[in-house]
Amino acid sequence: MSILLEKVKNKSAVISILGLGRVGLPLASVFSTKGLRVIGVDINETRLSSIKNGVCPFYDPALQENLNESKKLGMLEVVNDLEKVKDEIDILIVTVGTPTTEGNSVDYSQVYTALEEISKVNLKDKIIIMRSTLPPKTTVEIIIPFLENKTGLKLGEDFHLAVCPERILEGRAVKEIHQLPEIVGGVNQLSNEIVTELFKHINSEKKFSYTTVTGAELAKLFANVYRYIGFALSNEFAVWAEMYGENATNIINASNYEYSRSNIPKPGFAGGPCLSKDGLFLDNNTTFSSIVSTAWKVNESIPQHVINKIKENKKNIFGTEIGVLGLSFKEGSDDLRNSPSVKLVDLLKAAGAIVKVHDPFVKNTSSLDEVIQNSEIIIIATNHLEFKNIVKDLNKSNIKIIYDVWAMFKKEDFDSAKYLKLGMG
Amino acid sequence: MSILLEKVKNKSAVISILGLGRVGLPLASVFSTKGLRVIGVDINETRLSSIKNGVCPFYDPALQENLNESKKLGMLEVVNDLEKVKDEIDILIVTVGTPTTEGNSVDYSQVYTALEEISKVNLKDKIIIMRSTLPPKTTVEIIIPFLENKTGLKLGEDFHLAVCPERILEGRAVKEIHQLPEIVGGVNQLSNEIVTELFKHINSEKKFSYTTVTGAELAKLFANVYRYIGFALSNEFAVWAEMYGENATNIINASNYEYSRSNIPKPGFAGGPCLSKDGLFLDNNTTFSSIVSTAWKVNESIPQHVINKIKENKKNIFGTEIGVLGLSFKEGSDDLRNSPSVKLVDLLKAAGAIVKVHDPFVKNTSSLDEVIQNSEIIIIATNHLEFKNIVKDLNKSNIKIIYDVWAMFKKEDFDSAKYLKLGMG
Repeated sequence: MSILLEKVKNKSAVISILGLGRVGLPLASVFSTKGLRVIGVDINETRLSSIKNGVCPFYDPALQENLNESKKLGMLEVVNDLEKVKDEIDILIVTVGTPTTEGNSVDYSQVYTALEEISKVNLKDKIIIMRSTLPPKTTVEIIIPFLENKTGLKLGEDFHLAVCPERILEGRAVKEIHQLPEIVGGVNQLSNEIVTELFKHINSEKKFSYTTVTGAELAKLFANVYRYIGFALSNEFAVWAEMYGENATNIINASNYEYSRSNIPKPGFAGGPCLSKDGLFLDNNTTFSSIVSTAWKVNESIPQHVINKIKENKKNIFGTEIGVLGLSFKEGSDDLRNSPSVKLVDLLKAAGAIVKVHDPFVKNTSSLDEVIQNSEIIIIATNHLEFKNIVKDLNKSNIKIIYDVWAMFKKEDFDSAKYLKLGMG
Repeated sequence: MSILLEKVKNKSAVISILGLGRVGLPLASVFSTKGLRVIGVDINETRLSSIKNGVCPFYDPALQENLNESKKLGMLEVVNDLEKVKDEIDILIVTVGTPTTEGNSVDYSQVYTALEEISKVNLKDKIIIMRSTLPPKTTVEIIIPFLENKTGLKLGEDFHLAVCPERILEGRAVKEIHQLPEIVGGVNQLSNEIVTELFKHINSEKKFSYTTVTGAELAKLFANVYRYIGFALSNEFAVWAEMYGENATNIINASNYEYSRSNIPKPGFAGGPCLSKDGLFLDNNTTFSSIVSTAWKVNESIPQHVINKIKENKKNIFGTEIGVLGLSFKEGSDDLRNSPSVKLVDLLKAAGAIVKVHDPFVKNTSSLDEVIQNSEIIIIATNHLEFKNIVKDLNKSNIKIIYDVWAMFKKEDFDSAKYLKLGMG
């Protein structure tokens, strides 16, 4: 049996995790609570010192709890340079971000930084696990040639590699790392076995599906695009329902009710750091007009659609005081990356509105009171549960128009303000 | 209580069903086996005489069984003219077809024929139930004005109406009429109650969801479009997988495996009399490039994509003998309406191929032997279960290329023929 596989099985293998963001940190923390030694690597010093102090650098109560447990066990160490620990580690898990550039092409800069670091390690008998979301063929056409050229070692003989993409939802990371099945695309059977044995330490009942290296990259993108298309279709339905003077939410509920062939999501803002980007990784290699690109256009147009609907009730919003409630891309999160609410604020400002924002999870936003007291129009842009209680405050205010992106409320809830919602004609 | 509601509750109401096709006939047959008197109306004499002889005029073994039961009970009568029975009936259920014209706009001719017939009935205290698939606002803008103008009666006072769209899958009609929930969009509360009590005679546990008249039209379209988009996305994934030299079926399986957020269907031909048309009913009223229209383009392009892939292996198919197995739009059916296999045959003929077709369910097609013996290329175009057994025959033949649209087989199944399938690079 391979020495590395043996070390994984008996938990003596040391894991390094490159990138301690919303994918890497939960994984590092969970592995460290399962009796495996983990060394997290990141170049962001603020993030490192936060983790060293046992504080989760972003909002995630369940992860904070897991970090507390990890701290007691003392199996998680963080460093700013992989080279410092290069002789100790057996497994290199890459979780760095793959955002898009302003032109919506992939930004590989963090991947290249990670590859440069990895090349300094003697990879003999080690395994690299690519957990970042990657455009198709990244591993085969970029990562593998890069590493083989730099190290002179032969993949599959001297060292091993598997693509094993992360699919957790933000805010549910710790739970989902335990529960979700893993997609594994190893370069050889041994790579598949090592990943399987490693992740079974998290949950011995964990399920695995195996495919090729490129297949694993695609499987992650397909899964996310499938969800994203559902949101876009729902938004398209919302626009149609409005056109016919109907209520999209009611109709979608009627479609879905006890009918297994229909599972249409609710209309609303769809974006964030994964969904809106992953489709572009497929579409960027396509000259035809894909469903993905059309869906992207629909979802990206919803913030402007909200403004257009408001303008049907107030012709010009130049100089109008508008309050936006919620800035993060999803409820219960402080993550602003690719958030449609951020885009909404930009569009409102471009239209000349005076915008104030409140988000209970996002630092340096205005207070709820401040926003409500200084606004003529309120847009509820993120469906934070906390907003469920604001009806009274809004009814006491001088607000004239309320736009509810997530259908959190009903027309009847509001005394005098004009109530608008996405998908209501 | 309304007299009509009372008659529905005590099963003395007489039902007329306009249109005895794949929607109307199963419904008529099922109601007639539940102790309700049903009069079916159709202008197609061949169809009528087939039903009078107790023979289902299309392939559906479960319906044939139900018709046998119905015949014993003697509660189903069929006529060629509604006027003949106009004094006996209480309920008018419209199930006529709403196909599309060559230019893909709706063809209302059957609806108008039904409306002319209905206008000859004294509608006082009767209910009309629209079960056909309708473009949004058809009922409000066409059907209601037509009937009120022609009869001088007032809807909601003199007579009643509800939209209650059919959602059965072909081949499962009898089972699904019992099981599926009904979407009900009545013009008033009484219309909703009448429809509810009526359909409860089919299954007392039946579920109902209520919406507006136009909402019910939209809910049906949304449900079908949701499914259709899934098939289109899967086909788009298949094309991408091919581009990257990967196997779409394996990757989709890896995406879906034990992962509740991903439920991607299998790639394959998507068409038929409902799915490809229903999206157009929404899209025809839209000037923007919708997800629906993009999905339609993807699904409609798959037959040509199959030919293109074959041409990568045989440059020109002009004069080539090609056998197509399966002509109906879905497995176990003889329905050719909007079938992608029919389109495939047309495209092959246009390219100059000499085409022979075998379909075990479709009359006047060639025998399997005749097709296999006279073909250089075989395309398995419909996933009839019967085709599972043809491997031996194909291996004994001189066939050089086998194209498997539905991934029914594996490369290894075939000795010498080149094996191609949708979604395999």
